[in-house]
Amino acid sequence: MRIKYEKAYSELLRILYKIGFEDERARLCAKLFTESSLDGIYSHGLNRFSLFIKSIKDGYTDIHAYPEKIEERGLIERWDGKLGPGNLNAYYCMNQAIKNARKNRIGCIALKNTNHWMRGGTYGWQAANSKCISLCLTNTLPNMPPWGGEECKLGNNPLVIAVPRENGQHIVLDMAMTQFSYGKINEYKLNNKSLPVEGGFDQNGKLTKNPNKIIKTGRPLPMGYWKGSGLSIMIDLIVTLLSCGQSTSMIGTLEAEYGVSQIFLCFDISKDSLTYYKKAVNEIINFVHEATPVNRDGKVYYPGERTLLRRKDNLQKGIPVNKTVWKEIYNM
Amino acid sequence: MRIKYEKAYSELLRILYKIGFEDERARLCAKLFTESSLDGIYSHGLNRFSLFIKSIKDGYTDIHAYPEKIEERGLIERWDGKLGPGNLNAYYCMNQAIKNARKNRIGCIALKNTNHWMRGGTYGWQAANSKCISLCLTNTLPNMPPWGGEECKLGNNPLVIAVPRENGQHIVLDMAMTQFSYGKINEYKLNNKSLPVEGGFDQNGKLTKNPNKIIKTGRPLPMGYWKGSGLSIMIDLIVTLLSCGQSTSMIGTLEAEYGVSQIFLCFDISKDSLTYYKKAVNEIINFVHEATPVNRDGKVYYPGERTLLRRKDNLQKGIPVNKTVWKEIYNM
Repeated sequence: MRIKYEKAYSELLRILYKIGFEDERARLCAKLFTESSLDGIYSHGLNRFSLFIKSIKDGYTDIHAYPEKIEERGLIERWDGKLGPGNLNAYYCMNQAIKNARKNRIGCIALKNTNHWMRGGTYGWQAANSKCISLCLTNTLPNMPPWGGEECKLGNNPLVIAVPRENGQHIVLDMAMTQFSYGKINEYKLNNKSLPVEGGFDQNGKLTKNPNKIIKTGRPLPMGYWKGSGLSIMIDLIVTLLSCGQSTSMIGTLEAEYGVSQIFLCFDISKDSLTYYKKAVNEIINFVHEATPVNRDGKVYYPGERTLLRRKDNLQKGIPVNKTVWKEIYNM
Repeated sequence: MRIKYEKAYSELLRILYKIGFEDERARLCAKLFTESSLDGIYSHGLNRFSLFIKSIKDGYTDIHAYPEKIEERGLIERWDGKLGPGNLNAYYCMNQAIKNARKNRIGCIALKNTNHWMRGGTYGWQAANSKCISLCLTNTLPNMPPWGGEECKLGNNPLVIAVPRENGQHIVLDMAMTQFSYGKINEYKLNNKSLPVEGGFDQNGKLTKNPNKIIKTGRPLPMGYWKGSGLSIMIDLIVTLLSCGQSTSMIGTLEAEYGVSQIFLCFDISKDSLTYYKKAVNEIINFVHEATPVNRDGKVYYPGERTLLRRKDNLQKGIPVNKTVWKEIYNM
């Protein structure tokens, strides 16, 4: 089924009010969730909302907590998320990073004690809308084996890089360190399909495309094998050390995933020569677009390009929502 | 054969003097090349030296050029590498980034018109030795197809992230966006071996482990398929836009690879609490080390861990050098 943006938004808003969110925060929170689904990131939009509410009811997320600056280390600001809603904390800290970047061209917020930021790309789009190039990093609970090891000792530690472009056609990369997210693996499982490439390990430690086997072992493949494994370790180190927050290993000792560590880094480009900037960006994008598509009816896309297509489509036709998910939200 | 560090160093120094390098720069340049081989990165150490000399003789690298600051955009400094030796330019700019980070905790140098930095990890180790967390990015000529496209429209745009640790046991990730470097693919070819995982495309556009087929098509696989492809685009955008230098597409129009764009970003941690820092780093590393190795006699390593082992080994026994490579250097 498809639900119009306004309808989805107002349902989430109703629930957030009911659960005690203050007005402004309820509206921002509902907007961020609905926009994620609008952009086609269903797994971290409406599909994730009930888990978000559960985390509040379970006491892991404090809806009244505001992030607080605890220290300025030169241009690195350390903030405490106080276990507030992860998306609100992240949005707030990205705003702060943008503000600081306006002054010094670079802004860097290190945030500890926060929660899952839901769709990471949100903060890339946010920075790009404010004419900043951005890099956002987060750690997670351990959910991926290191290359050469059996148990999940690494997080899938997502990374977001975004570059602004005119007319909101920003270039936004939002990726976790696993080759496939658990959401994607589950999708293939539900559709009874094989993954397009190997995405994890079976019970004998062999690489497999079978989503059932990967879900059974709980051992997804790091993207690029040893490369994604190494990058995950580096991301955990950076967010933990700069924020003085919890590392993946510490989060792994808790009864649930909370108190994660994040970085929001901005480069302000609003004062740069727009003529040069536009020319250079378009040159890079056009060059990529020139590649002959491997599939005859295919196209080569830049990161985030399809997001804009989906956004337009979903705005017109309504957001595709799973019936069960919508019923659950409707009855909350 | 194995050559002692001092012997290799003095041979390179002799050649650099002969070709006209000034004393101090000759010594640094010889040191950087020899250290790369010492650390086991043979492809970007002694094995690359004759190509480096060729680039000088061909007029693409100017041994008398010094990098010059052209603009301060807040805390982002823009430098012009003036087509000087890539490793000297990168070393110099990383020094500058460290110096700036000492003042503001963050230092960021954007460098244009420079040349191949040889072994990227060098600048990660350099920053870590100065108690800085660092991120270095470079673009390259087009040498990798974007995901879903046929022709090489992306660079393999290497990325370096380094985190300092006591006793020089730094954690250093140095990786290109291809699953395997051309050097590695060639190594497998020479040894008549298959790649351990798929590393590129054959003539029918199918993924293959056969190094000969990949060399024939010139289409290596982006690491993590669409993920490495996306990350390569973002790296090209960042280094080009911040340095106002050449993008991969522009470099692709030249008769050889020169005038690449780079970023050196540092976070100074020398004033942070060492007790906390040490504890957090060791917690992360120990957690990874705890994973049960997949191979009974294996071990799970953090990025850079094996580098230290090789450095120690090669310092004792001498650096392994290919006979032909050594002969060539010896006769220069």
